[in-house]
Amino acid sequence: MAKLVLIRHGQSEWNALNLFNGWVDTKLSDQGIEQARKAGEMLAAEEIQFDQAYTSVLTRAITTLHLALEEAGQLFIPETKSWRLNERHYGALQGLNKADAAEKWGADQVLQWRRSYDVLPPLLTEQDATVEVLGKTYAAFDRRYADVPAGELPFGENLKVTLERVLPFWASNIERDLKAGKNVIIAAHGNSLRALVKHIEGISDDDILKVEIANGQPWIYDFDADMKVADKKIIGE
Amino acid sequence: MAKLVLIRHGQSEWNALNLFNGWVDTKLSDQGIEQARKAGEMLAAEEIQFDQAYTSVLTRAITTLHLALEEAGQLFIPETKSWRLNERHYGALQGLNKADAAEKWGADQVLQWRRSYDVLPPLLTEQDATVEVLGKTYAAFDRRYADVPAGELPFGENLKVTLERVLPFWASNIERDLKAGKNVIIAAHGNSLRALVKHIEGISDDDILKVEIANGQPWIYDFDADMKVADKKIIGE
Repeated sequence: MAKLVLIRHGQSEWNALNLFNGWVDTKLSDQGIEQARKAGEMLAAEEIQFDQAYTSVLTRAITTLHLALEEAGQLFIPETKSWRLNERHYGALQGLNKADAAEKWGADQVLQWRRSYDVLPPLLTEQDATVEVLGKTYAAFDRRYADVPAGELPFGENLKVTLERVLPFWASNIERDLKAGKNVIIAAHGNSLRALVKHIEGISDDDILKVEIANGQPWIYDFDADMKVADKKIIGE
Repeated sequence: MAKLVLIRHGQSEWNALNLFNGWVDTKLSDQGIEQARKAGEMLAAEEIQFDQAYTSVLTRAITTLHLALEEAGQLFIPETKSWRLNERHYGALQGLNKADAAEKWGADQVLQWRRSYDVLPPLLTEQDATVEVLGKTYAAFDRRYADVPAGELPFGENLKVTLERVLPFWASNIERDLKAGKNVIIAAHGNSLRALVKHIEGISDDDILKVEIANGQPWIYDFDADMKVADKKIIGE
């Protein structure tokens, strides 16, 4: 038996402003920091001893992992980061709020981008080096993506594409560890975790869009020796 | 050219109480947290782009690394932890202050343990499972050391022995990365860093004991292609 814990990062500065965040590297809000610490306290109460941590290369997920592990007294476990656990890339929507986007492309279109499984958002181009938000300039990409294989760097994703780039990491690292009996914690994002949940639970393309993973609420899966889900619970609801 | 930055962790709770700390897993004091953030600000001002981070499996070093990288905007770099970067194991002195130790073993003896290169402190035994300090119980060892090869777990070290267990990690990871042109940051401890400095600068057994590495003051080495030190500076003095 091995345990897998999924934690969506605490509220980010842009979640608080209701902006499309995607791959733009924003920080946790004060509320987000509190949510991450709380998640760690809840995991300490569950008495799970973790063997391996995974997170994305985005600060809001990394910080969430560190705060949660600190509260759980397990900062010492090995940690591996991967761009494959990043949030869904929101393309040219990144940095806009829903009202801005609706004004530009129409409310129906924006709803379709947010709520469909396989419709792509308007893409960034390689020329879109920066994202301007509230007078501040953010890099669209930077050196942390230098090792992404040629052709695999996304410029805008739907959940289908997100799942396709998460799955190789599931197989190469997460599933491998669980099969070896290791307890794994993953701090990541609403949509990269949704992709994992779809795969783990075999949820349909339509139904997965109704699944909401709240900031800082750990999802705990128990896997049996055949990698079937033996138990699942969400704590802190 | 590759850069190596060494940072001794910020002040720990036990540094503040003047206790022998060693492998007991204590946290940063408020002052230590401030020192770690300050180190990160100084590194940001140096504009060093790190490729790899190393730290020990002790919370005070890990937290120092995370706070410094957060301030430097580089939390996303890969991080590897190893027991080989832990502080010198202080054996049966762990948890005592210098006055307690002097009362028990004599002031001259305690000074010799602290100031000699190759005299071992009184050892812990495998039966010493816990360390009692100020009414609190600490584990002498725990599951984070489960993978240490048989016979290599220390029960008390001098600087000579510390150097011997740090060097394999220098060769397998740190030196390898520097040779590959990577910029490396290491957050570790007074004596594991002293061991590295002795090796890097070729300092004698006697002279190394006079080298003081202050909490949170980054030591920056530039290596040329032949792994010779081309430049060295200490910032924040």
